[in-house]
Amino acid sequence: MGEKIQTMTFGNKPRIIAGMSVVGKKEGEGPLGKYFDIVQYDPKFGEKTFEKGEANMFSRAISGAIRKAGLEPYDVDVLLAGDLLNQLVSSSYVARGLPMAYLGLYSACSTMTEALALGAALIDAGHFRRAACATGSHFATAERQYRYPLEYGCQRPPYAQWTATAAGCSILSCEGPGPAITHATIGRVVDFGINDLNNMGAAMAVAAADTIYTVFEDTGFDERDFDAIFTGDLGRLGAEIMRDLCRERGLELGQKYSDCGEMMYYRGQNCYCGASGAGCSASVLNSYILGRLNGGMYKRVLLLATGALMSPTTSYQGETIPSVSHGVILEAE
Amino acid sequence: MGEKIQTMTFGNKPRIIAGMSVVGKKEGEGPLGKYFDIVQYDPKFGEKTFEKGEANMFSRAISGAIRKAGLEPYDVDVLLAGDLLNQLVSSSYVARGLPMAYLGLYSACSTMTEALALGAALIDAGHFRRAACATGSHFATAERQYRYPLEYGCQRPPYAQWTATAAGCSILSCEGPGPAITHATIGRVVDFGINDLNNMGAAMAVAAADTIYTVFEDTGFDERDFDAIFTGDLGRLGAEIMRDLCRERGLELGQKYSDCGEMMYYRGQNCYCGASGAGCSASVLNSYILGRLNGGMYKRVLLLATGALMSPTTSYQGETIPSVSHGVILEAE
Repeated sequence: MGEKIQTMTFGNKPRIIAGMSVVGKKEGEGPLGKYFDIVQYDPKFGEKTFEKGEANMFSRAISGAIRKAGLEPYDVDVLLAGDLLNQLVSSSYVARGLPMAYLGLYSACSTMTEALALGAALIDAGHFRRAACATGSHFATAERQYRYPLEYGCQRPPYAQWTATAAGCSILSCEGPGPAITHATIGRVVDFGINDLNNMGAAMAVAAADTIYTVFEDTGFDERDFDAIFTGDLGRLGAEIMRDLCRERGLELGQKYSDCGEMMYYRGQNCYCGASGAGCSASVLNSYILGRLNGGMYKRVLLLATGALMSPTTSYQGETIPSVSHGVILEAE
Repeated sequence: MGEKIQTMTFGNKPRIIAGMSVVGKKEGEGPLGKYFDIVQYDPKFGEKTFEKGEANMFSRAISGAIRKAGLEPYDVDVLLAGDLLNQLVSSSYVARGLPMAYLGLYSACSTMTEALALGAALIDAGHFRRAACATGSHFATAERQYRYPLEYGCQRPPYAQWTATAAGCSILSCEGPGPAITHATIGRVVDFGINDLNNMGAAMAVAAADTIYTVFEDTGFDERDFDAIFTGDLGRLGAEIMRDLCRERGLELGQKYSDCGEMMYYRGQNCYCGASGAGCSASVLNSYILGRLNGGMYKRVLLLATGALMSPTTSYQGETIPSVSHGVILEAE
């Protein structure tokens, strides 16, 4: 009954009219430090627990983005948000303090592009005037939920990644300045057969490769049409695998391609293969990438956030790691 | 800058062209038993663990709905799904075996109406031809994740609810027979100050009441315009609170109002105040409610699924329970 359809095209130019990024100390000390709006040195963000700290970071990203857009919370109709904590509690507890409709999303570390895709679709159709799209992650909460207690001091393999303490929020509207979201491609769930929780970059690379082919097939664009192509948090090893997977199908990504996880830390920061976490691509998008789109350095960008969809329970039960990558195309005015 | 907007109106009649429900033994022995498509007596659904059993139930609901619509998996463009397990692993692992794009959603027990709202928006805008919207829950997996190990035999208060072992899937398309989704109202997150994990019906009732007022304000409909109004899983006590909250604002719900959680079990089944769980409203919608819409007994129905957005971690940290309710209006042909 015809071709599979994964890509949405937006005719009414839903735009990112403002973006906000909030990160932790380590991220602030990395190569992108100067681009982030807020660098917070206290890992608990002034709260009593790491979880409440994560919610505080999340809240600052959302309220900051709304303020940067020159709006009040009441001017934003809907919040599309998710995070890595069980039951998305950072998103939900922040949403409790906001007056707008709330859509909880979970796509692990690809939540930012899922939120942008759905937010753009709702804004483009005229259902809402403005949407806030947000996600984040926190090293300390993710580590103790997904891996080991922080005090345990578990040794990591060199291909491990470091969950970024970071949050980002974009405000979408069809009115106002800023780059338009012209297309969004919703990923399929793929599985490379990886079952090593420290090697998520490899698991996710295959999802990013699957989605980039789909973006090119569905839109007719190819790598020459983009000034930059970013994956979310594959890290150094995952980004190499991504390059190899694309090369196998005749696609040479070259210098245009970067991975937000690879960009986040200096090698000397002891973060192994780089950053992971939903906040990684969210914070890089809402600082560095958005700045370069608004500053005229980029005309068209493809962002492929990448998510590993396992849980500790499925890993204990011997399962491999399924992954997904949702892509959005951003075009400067 | 104008009124808050929470309601979407769909002009192209996205319809539920097929629905499928799969439930466990206890649900099959309840008052709605004869309406469900599949009643499975083995709580592990033939698998080795309860979690894999839940995924199996989920998978049967989705593949069954696709089959009932006369389609193949390749004919469905996108799956919008979520569940109660950490990291939505039932949804994601089932999505791994399907060829379509995947959007993971989390709205606790209001995930079914979040999926229908977003699915209808994407279908209505013409981005996709057909969407599958699915959610589910399982007594044994939810109990051990959210409360106590099953073997512990913890005593429950009389106002507790019983997580339904149930899954439901709706196939949406603008072409084909079936009731149209004419409006969807996205809920705000509200908090009644309840911190008793056994009293989620009370926590969620305030969200359902908030959303029903919004539905009536935004659409101009009132209770007389509906043949039936359903909440998701408030249970007996929560449904009473819902009636009281509405009465306080001059809205008498009367006989038209039922709660899917209250309908699920006989009193003699020892399920306290009734069913909870994302699968509760999903299975009742895709069996009893859909049957009565297609059979001409209902002309217009309002379904308000209800979700409690806490996690065990937030409860341990002394937090109260925020809740949300998303509503959809269904109209028979």
